[in-house]
Amino acid sequence: MHTPGSSTAGYALLLIVQVVFIIVFGFCTDYAKELLPVKNETARVHSPAESEGGNLRKYPRNTEYFQDIHVMIFAGFAFLMTFLKRYGFSASGLNLLVAALVVQWAIIMRGCYEMEDGIIPISLQNLIGADIAAAAVLISMGALLGRTTPIQLLIMGILEIAIFAGNEYLQLELVKAADVGGSITVHAFGAYFGLAVSFMLRPKKELAKAGPLEGSSYSSDISAMIGTIFLWIFWPSFNSALVDGADQERAIINTYLSLAGATVTTFVLSALVSHEHKLDMVHVQNSTLAGGVAVGSICNLLIHPFGALIVGVMAGVISVLGYRFLTPAILSNLRIADTCGVHNLHGMPAVLSAIFSAIYASFASVETYGTSLATIFPAMQNPNATNATSEIEPLEYVIGGYGRSGAKQGAFQLMAIGITMVIAIVGGLITGLILKSPSVRQLEEHELHKDDAFWETPSEESTNTTSTTNESSN
Amino acid sequence: MHTPGSSTAGYALLLIVQVVFIIVFGFCTDYAKELLPVKNETARVHSPAESEGGNLRKYPRNTEYFQDIHVMIFAGFAFLMTFLKRYGFSASGLNLLVAALVVQWAIIMRGCYEMEDGIIPISLQNLIGADIAAAAVLISMGALLGRTTPIQLLIMGILEIAIFAGNEYLQLELVKAADVGGSITVHAFGAYFGLAVSFMLRPKKELAKAGPLEGSSYSSDISAMIGTIFLWIFWPSFNSALVDGADQERAIINTYLSLAGATVTTFVLSALVSHEHKLDMVHVQNSTLAGGVAVGSICNLLIHPFGALIVGVMAGVISVLGYRFLTPAILSNLRIADTCGVHNLHGMPAVLSAIFSAIYASFASVETYGTSLATIFPAMQNPNATNATSEIEPLEYVIGGYGRSGAKQGAFQLMAIGITMVIAIVGGLITGLILKSPSVRQLEEHELHKDDAFWETPSEESTNTTSTTNESSN
Amino acid sequence: MHTPGSSTAGYALLLIVQVVFIIVFGFCTDYAKELLPVKNETARVHSPAESEGGNLRKYPRNTEYFQDIHVMIFAGFAFLMTFLKRYGFSASGLNLLVAALVVQWAIIMRGCYEMEDGIIPISLQNLIGADIAAAAVLISMGALLGRTTPIQLLIMGILEIAIFAGNEYLQLELVKAADVGGSITVHAFGAYFGLAVSFMLRPKKELAKAGPLEGSSYSSDISAMIGTIFLWIFWPSFNSALVDGADQERAIINTYLSLAGATVTTFVLSALVSHEHKLDMVHVQNSTLAGGVAVGSICNLLIHPFGALIVGVMAGVISVLGYRFLTPAILSNLRIADTCGVHNLHGMPAVLSAIFSAIYASFASVETYGTSLATIFPAMQNPNATNATSEIEPLEYVIGGYGRSGAKQGAFQLMAIGITMVIAIVGGLITGLILKSPSVRQLEEHELHKDDAFWETPSEESTNTTSTTNESSN
Repeated sequence: MHTPGSSTAGYALLLIVQVVFIIVFGFCTDYAKELLPVKNETARVHSPAESEGGNLRKYPRNTEYFQDIHVMIFAGFAFLMTFLKRYGFSASGLNLLVAALVVQWAIIMRGCYEMEDGIIPISLQNLIGADIAAAAVLISMGALLGRTTPIQLLIMGILEIAIFAGNEYLQLELVKAADVGGSITVHAFGAYFGLAVSFMLRPKKELAKAGPLEGSSYSSDISAMIGTIFLWIFWPSFNSALVDGADQERAIINTYLSLAGATVTTFVLSALVSHEHKLDMVHVQNSTLAGGVAVGSICNLLIHPFGALIVGVMAGVISVLGYRFLTPAILSNLRIADTCGVHNLHGMPAVLSAIFSAIYASFASVETYGTSLATIFPAMQNPNATNATSEIEPLEYVIGGYGRSGAKQGAFQLMAIGITMVIAIVGGLITGLILKSPSVRQLEEHELHKDDAFWETPSEESTNTTSTTNESSN
Repeated sequence: MHTPGSSTAGYALLLIVQVVFIIVFGFCTDYAKELLPVKNETARVHSPAESEGGNLRKYPRNTEYFQDIHVMIFAGFAFLMTFLKRYGFSASGLNLLVAALVVQWAIIMRGCYEMEDGIIPISLQNLIGADIAAAAVLISMGALLGRTTPIQLLIMGILEIAIFAGNEYLQLELVKAADVGGSITVHAFGAYFGLAVSFMLRPKKELAKAGPLEGSSYSSDISAMIGTIFLWIFWPSFNSALVDGADQERAIINTYLSLAGATVTTFVLSALVSHEHKLDMVHVQNSTLAGGVAVGSICNLLIHPFGALIVGVMAGVISVLGYRFLTPAILSNLRIADTCGVHNLHGMPAVLSAIFSAIYASFASVETYGTSLATIFPAMQNPNATNATSEIEPLEYVIGGYGRSGAKQGAFQLMAIGITMVIAIVGGLITGLILKSPSVRQLEEHELHKDDAFWETPSEESTNTTSTTNESSN
Repeated sequence: MHTPGSSTAGYALLLIVQVVFIIVFGFCTDYAKELLPVKNETARVHSPAESEGGNLRKYPRNTEYFQDIHVMIFAGFAFLMTFLKRYGFSASGLNLLVAALVVQWAIIMRGCYEMEDGIIPISLQNLIGADIAAAAVLISMGALLGRTTPIQLLIMGILEIAIFAGNEYLQLELVKAADVGGSITVHAFGAYFGLAVSFMLRPKKELAKAGPLEGSSYSSDISAMIGTIFLWIFWPSFNSALVDGADQERAIINTYLSLAGATVTTFVLSALVSHEHKLDMVHVQNSTLAGGVAVGSICNLLIHPFGALIVGVMAGVISVLGYRFLTPAILSNLRIADTCGVHNLHGMPAVLSAIFSAIYASFASVETYGTSLATIFPAMQNPNATNATSEIEPLEYVIGGYGRSGAKQGAFQLMAIGITMVIAIVGGLITGLILKSPSVRQLEEHELHKDDAFWETPSEESTNTTSTTNESSN
């Protein structure tokens, strides 16, 4: 039998975490300067400049991207994970809880790297960044779905965000990897982190197989499609939210085409490799999205429409084959459970994306990318050139320095995915070790993939009875 | 047995209402002037000015906010109310019907206060205003869910919008209360109006308890989460739709953080106060949203990130405790049924928001808010000061006049919530009296919380049978 | 028994189609010029002009409209079609597959008419156009829902898009019909095309009635409402995506009001004509949307708010009566099955829209529309007038030439709907003939409206058993 006492302690701990967050927010954050009211007449004197900057702020330009990503994190992931027949409350509810907790923490941890005078300046950009960081945790949650307590998930989220923020800063600001869609820093990180945690929490040998409730029902498969479809729809916004202008529009187009290619491929392959050549909902719900992951690091590059399609098709192939053959093999051999198959949806397609980013980077030059090279591959610009922007940071902060050749940038892209995977796996192993410690309540076997241990659930019997009673009394 | 005849009469009446609306639209409305084509060359001469105004119009700036709010009203409220196991057709269908009717009426009634030459000028702003007004009616509907006929809901909607529009004008234009997120004018109004109607329609003493169908099923709880999650996602747009620039971005940030704080708190408290310390879906579906209500009137103020979190946490506490203890007490003692618990989601958090708005207003000054003071608290600007905007309306129209001190503005904030509650309750009582009149068909006891009286519903038996038959014949 | 072999061949064929698409994309498409990086200093010299054009591109102005339409195509249509009790996997899954395939094909086929130097320039506009084209196919799919194999749907989609693109070019560029919301080119085309296919695939006489699985379950009706509501919400964006400025805002307002009017009317009429005067979910799910179709071709015209309401009310009337009386009659007399009733939601309301567009066009003049006339009815502008834009294409390309009178434009509107219907019906008949050919696998009777032939479906029995077992073991 489970012990409600430990749950209570866990939830009380969560309250303390929330209070600590409030204190940290109180002492270490404030609105970004441009969001504070103009206070004195001096500021009004600079009216042309002000109105120029003010224009940008007048209609916050990223609102629609923010809300699109917000839909993905809070509706997309939530419903995608409702595919288990008796775990829908947890999937939709814990997705909300975990995300609501870690976005706060992500604002703090990511903010550590952009503090000004000891204060984290908060603007809409920070919320977008926090939402994206939450995605990494939700991906890890997908690997563990149904195998942890809520408190274990929250502990994991706290630890993961801290490591995530450090790795993100390392890859984007120090290694200067190109990764606008977050395939390296979000998808690969979240997937391998979650798999490493799953390895630490691996079941006993005789339990290394799908549990009795580790399947879908007809209606849970439909509600999972809500998640799939909203993720599919808004993925172009996810991949393009952090880029501007023509790069942004290319990112939308490439993501759109890659998703389309992955989707068609998923259906074809699902039918070809499945039992009796029937379509498998697991593939449709997940592998159709692999195109969005696989194009993530390269969606703003000049991969051209056919390149986007090829990447999508390859992602669909890898993902469906992964679900069909690799995940069962990993479960039975390494005892790593991966309930949602995040390795197939996020892990492998993200590695593919990183490899492609290295290839495309090797061929990048100022001849092909013109003035965009400096924004796409910041470390490839030459700080001594006449047309260099004045905003270049001191050389010593960037690993490998500026003025990289295409080939060198390509090598750094590979370094970024490599280091990210190492950090994610080591971080996940340590996190898993903590989650396994005797002071943390673990799930018992009969509680796997079931809401009932942590949720008040309506009794289905009484529903039917009542319904029948009413029908007959009518 | 129910009498279909009266339904028919009700629906026929509804048709007449729709025809009357068309006539009123025909005689009293037109597109706003800036939406009419430029007709002559004279207009083209003013090309710089035109292009300036034209710029604003060229890309209607509020489209995305409009659509975000539209999602909340038509998808969010609709699915949130599908939590009852046998009332999903009514929840999703009547939400659509009621909203589609009252937005038309709201354009007319709200338009009465902004007529130009006897014509209501209609632009996108009016649609946003109408959607927000519809929210008040849908909140009241939430209190009554499953306890009225469709026609009673529609009559209530018509009466409520008329009173709503008057109160909104009173509070925003005459009292000059700050309420950008509508906590006072929408949430408090809608909740207390609905509760007053519910009081008038109160059940007989022996029926003042939850009915046999007044609960959820596993799948209805999942579909209700669709509503919760989309409301949660787009609440920052709701609260910030009517403000501009930096104020708008602050409103987004504060709402985001308040919701996050309320969500974490809801889960903690739900587990702590619930039976066996399990999470309760009712709390998760509703109290997580209380943070959006509680921050409504203050989201554009300088409450700072930690202030937003504190407000959210308080809202979560109040709301969960309300669901756990207050709603059952009100039902058994006062016989006021509140099916969706709107008092806990909208009522009390809105009052909290108003109190906070009074506190923050007391400390507001031109030193802290600078030039934004005039837009945030219009009645605090001094009409005689040199930097006053020229758009100040004549003093006589504003109750209490311009040039208010912070403390005075705070008092007016309290006045706004007080008057709103009085108007809502009195209006609701009168409306309830009308709904109870013998000429209006009432629900009978066996029809409570059940679609079957008003909807053709598929027979579940035959589904199962057919399905089984087909399985076996396969 | 079905023959999996033929499915496999079909899916393999689909893979070939995808590969062919990639090759065509590789040789015949590229990003639009403005999406390519600025490559040399020469371009930088034109900095004012560049920044002007750049401004437009800096924040791609149609992103939000694109995402809104994307929601309609991929979530709206998908869930609307899940109303069948045992066809939800197919509805949501095949909607995704068909749409993902035909958007690629639509970019190619529509691009044929805007090639530059043998290359189709791809920008966000092409994605919007492709999504809209996919709508036509999904409408046709609605007519056939549950009566085809996946491969038949895909063959239909490929053929339909080719014909669609030709007809769209004919009506919009050569006939110069006004049709911003696509009522003529999308809704009428898709509906009559689908009905013509359905006629060719008509069942044997004894089967010309609703099948045993051709109904809804309680939960499938709720999930269909997800589709209805999201379509309802974003229809204003669909109708206004391709217009600018004041015209765009009018299109939003008119669509909003027409939908509201249609919705109220649908409920009234559904109750009045239905069995026992109860509301019918089929009407609520579909006829509420007819207002969006009926206002499609005229939403940017000066139809005024009351005109929009009247159009919506008429659409609601036509649509409900169509569902109640016409669809059953067509099925039993002509043996044309129309599973989703697309004739009532898309077909007849679109014809209504075309007729209204002819009427409004007849009364259009430069006196009423001013300078907007040239954008709304391009063929009505006089190429010899002084204020004519310089972008007028050579006269010979436009059927009937420029300088049309209002009455003449009205005649061309009727011509557009007439030719569209002829093309759609002839195209649908030919397509149906191909789908019926012996080399294409047909559905057998016992496979109608059922996922199981093409999907691995969870066994409901085991779910219940497991659940019960676990309850008891708890």
